[in-house]
Amino acid sequence: MASMKAEFSSREEYLAYLEEHGRLPEGFRVGTANLSFLPRERPVSEPLPMRLTLVLLDKPSRDFAAVYTRNRFPGAPVIIGRSRLAEDSTRGALVNNKISNVCAPRGVEDAEEVLAALGQLTGIPGKQLFPSSTGIIGWSLPVAEMKAALPALVQSLHEGSCVDAAQAIMTTDAYAKAHSVAVGNGRITGFAKGAGMMEPNVATMLVFLMTDLAVPRDLMQQMLGRVCERTFNCISVDSDQSTSDTVLFFSSGVKGPAPEAQIEAALEEVCLSLAQHIVRNGEGTAHVIRVSVTGAADFHVARDFGKAIVNSPLLKAAVNGNDPNVGRIVCALGDFAGNSGAAFDASGLVIRLGGETIFRRGVFELSAEKEKTLAAGLREAAMDPAAKTFPPHKRCVDIALEMQDGTAEAVVYGSDLSREYVAENADYRS
Amino acid sequence: MASMKAEFSSREEYLAYLEEHGRLPEGFRVGTANLSFLPRERPVSEPLPMRLTLVLLDKPSRDFAAVYTRNRFPGAPVIIGRSRLAEDSTRGALVNNKISNVCAPRGVEDAEEVLAALGQLTGIPGKQLFPSSTGIIGWSLPVAEMKAALPALVQSLHEGSCVDAAQAIMTTDAYAKAHSVAVGNGRITGFAKGAGMMEPNVATMLVFLMTDLAVPRDLMQQMLGRVCERTFNCISVDSDQSTSDTVLFFSSGVKGPAPEAQIEAALEEVCLSLAQHIVRNGEGTAHVIRVSVTGAADFHVARDFGKAIVNSPLLKAAVNGNDPNVGRIVCALGDFAGNSGAAFDASGLVIRLGGETIFRRGVFELSAEKEKTLAAGLREAAMDPAAKTFPPHKRCVDIALEMQDGTAEAVVYGSDLSREYVAENADYRS
Repeated sequence: MASMKAEFSSREEYLAYLEEHGRLPEGFRVGTANLSFLPRERPVSEPLPMRLTLVLLDKPSRDFAAVYTRNRFPGAPVIIGRSRLAEDSTRGALVNNKISNVCAPRGVEDAEEVLAALGQLTGIPGKQLFPSSTGIIGWSLPVAEMKAALPALVQSLHEGSCVDAAQAIMTTDAYAKAHSVAVGNGRITGFAKGAGMMEPNVATMLVFLMTDLAVPRDLMQQMLGRVCERTFNCISVDSDQSTSDTVLFFSSGVKGPAPEAQIEAALEEVCLSLAQHIVRNGEGTAHVIRVSVTGAADFHVARDFGKAIVNSPLLKAAVNGNDPNVGRIVCALGDFAGNSGAAFDASGLVIRLGGETIFRRGVFELSAEKEKTLAAGLREAAMDPAAKTFPPHKRCVDIALEMQDGTAEAVVYGSDLSREYVAENADYRS
Repeated sequence: MASMKAEFSSREEYLAYLEEHGRLPEGFRVGTANLSFLPRERPVSEPLPMRLTLVLLDKPSRDFAAVYTRNRFPGAPVIIGRSRLAEDSTRGALVNNKISNVCAPRGVEDAEEVLAALGQLTGIPGKQLFPSSTGIIGWSLPVAEMKAALPALVQSLHEGSCVDAAQAIMTTDAYAKAHSVAVGNGRITGFAKGAGMMEPNVATMLVFLMTDLAVPRDLMQQMLGRVCERTFNCISVDSDQSTSDTVLFFSSGVKGPAPEAQIEAALEEVCLSLAQHIVRNGEGTAHVIRVSVTGAADFHVARDFGKAIVNSPLLKAAVNGNDPNVGRIVCALGDFAGNSGAAFDASGLVIRLGGETIFRRGVFELSAEKEKTLAAGLREAAMDPAAKTFPPHKRCVDIALEMQDGTAEAVVYGSDLSREYVAENADYRS
């Protein structure tokens, strides 16, 4: 968590920090525009708001990469984006929130029509732009209203900071997320939206990564795949993987090359910071749960055991209530292990909560005294979900699983389950 | 749902119905007793209440069967119960709520000590009794207090109705669950507790099934396995499978034999009724979601697709808010299919909600008019979770998946996700 400032005492303080850490690499501009529309799929009395965001390379670049959802009903932007990976060059991405353009009639045609209109305005071929959408599944894009907003979008393009873009792509996010790391002569900057539906791979999460360092396309794709495994694929807000998860990575190359290992380390730092922000800013999140798994047979087992814990609704609800109901950790692990058939030495497993050993050699080690310590630790790690327009601290509920099956490790982040999560999702579309 | 009465207008009406339908088979008695204790693992100011329940065969029987959890950290009663299946005969089960006796130090010894004390009182060898516990994981049984309550428990034994037993085994259940079906000269009667932690197999669910028909032990075990697959293993309240799930089936045999097919059909009717009650009475449940999958390649695929829907927190929250957010059905299916690698014809899938076609040939079929119909249907199927001490109706939110991959079918039941679920689980132990 070294990449995240320890404490913010106000939204203003966070926004100032963000402005400083949302610096665009050279060769990139961003812009945003607002519009409103009446959906044809749902009776609403007031027009709904939508925001457009444009991430634009000054010149076409041959160097770009993407990681997309594994959901079997991907959105039109994912279908189009996969085909864009075969293009010679790109100029960036056009993003909208509010409607995800998934399995809508004419979804691909609608997205291409908007990109073509943007192309007429800017001289950029539509095939040089990635579409990207987040929001309600099943509805159609308001194509006419989006096209009408494009001139304002283009006019708003600017260098410098991506914070306005990070704000414009939000849906249920309570604060904008951006992070930048300097490498050699250049930098890597990313911004993201996340919140609900965060699991198990890149879930309803849109991430835009930009660098002015020169990195060949093949290497970008390999690096991005590896880094996503260790960052975005190690987080979970709920157990749903979205139809629209997207991580895009663009290089302008204007600052020349840097050592590969340095670039990958910086990319991982940016992605880990964004991933942690996404969990902390999850829908209704009051606690971030961090599960550190060591001694596993391999990385995938370690990550699966960690996710089994952070995906247990019962444990998540107990953590939300500051209740150290440690039995639910063991229940979740036993459930996962028994049903997946995952092999592990159950008698060798040691479980710690907040540093306290609670389970060893197949039995719990509990006492009334320890319970008080654990409950105090949970209260200490809590955030107020009603007033979370900035990250108040970086504290986590720390669960450690020490396995005796090998040397592999993983760190998994998840959120608790709050009344606010349910409230937010019970009528998200209204 | 033929086995469940359509509507109850009051708790009194439900209890009268239950009394009528909770008739014990011949050769069985049940009894209950209360006690209180101070746990050593948690600082509480007031003693906690516990209830004991005894299910007793008048004579030792060679014919009994059990299905247990697949959780890799099973409770001591599950460990002991599995060994009891090798015994020559049984007399029944001793049940307690409040503490599940899972991974507690000396858990097996504690359970055996209580059974041995009951044996001294009744002349029944401890090995002829199954222990069964539900409640908090990790705590130790209050052995001394339980032993002190045994004389009152034995004194309370009676024939006739199992409704008092069905009430005594409850934890967070809001109403008792029992069902009885006549077959030939005899009957099959079952009672159950369930509520949270209901998935994917027999989850924190204790089910006690009794018959006075003569069924050989091997046949009982085969029937019970088949029936559990089609009933208890097709329900889900949340995605956690408990450490203590237990289905026990005892035969007194005093009414002689009946045709095997009739017995299995009656057993399935009893189990399906109990399974549906468990979902309807789940923690905070305001809607029961019923997913009917047809045209699947095999039964397991059908059940897995159904469970993918009823286990999606986002869909469950939307249903709770009477919001027909049909995109989340497709998202959940696509997530499951993409990550499990399950093969199916995505373009052939038809999805209906409340009888309305919402998805066909890869695209949604939505309109503002249809949305109104769907939302009205959700409101119609709702129950008030604040006043649910009886099942007010048997209505479900009906989702149909018509696959084009084969002829297998499954019907899966699940609950929505409410603020009340989270509230109940945020401080269950206090």
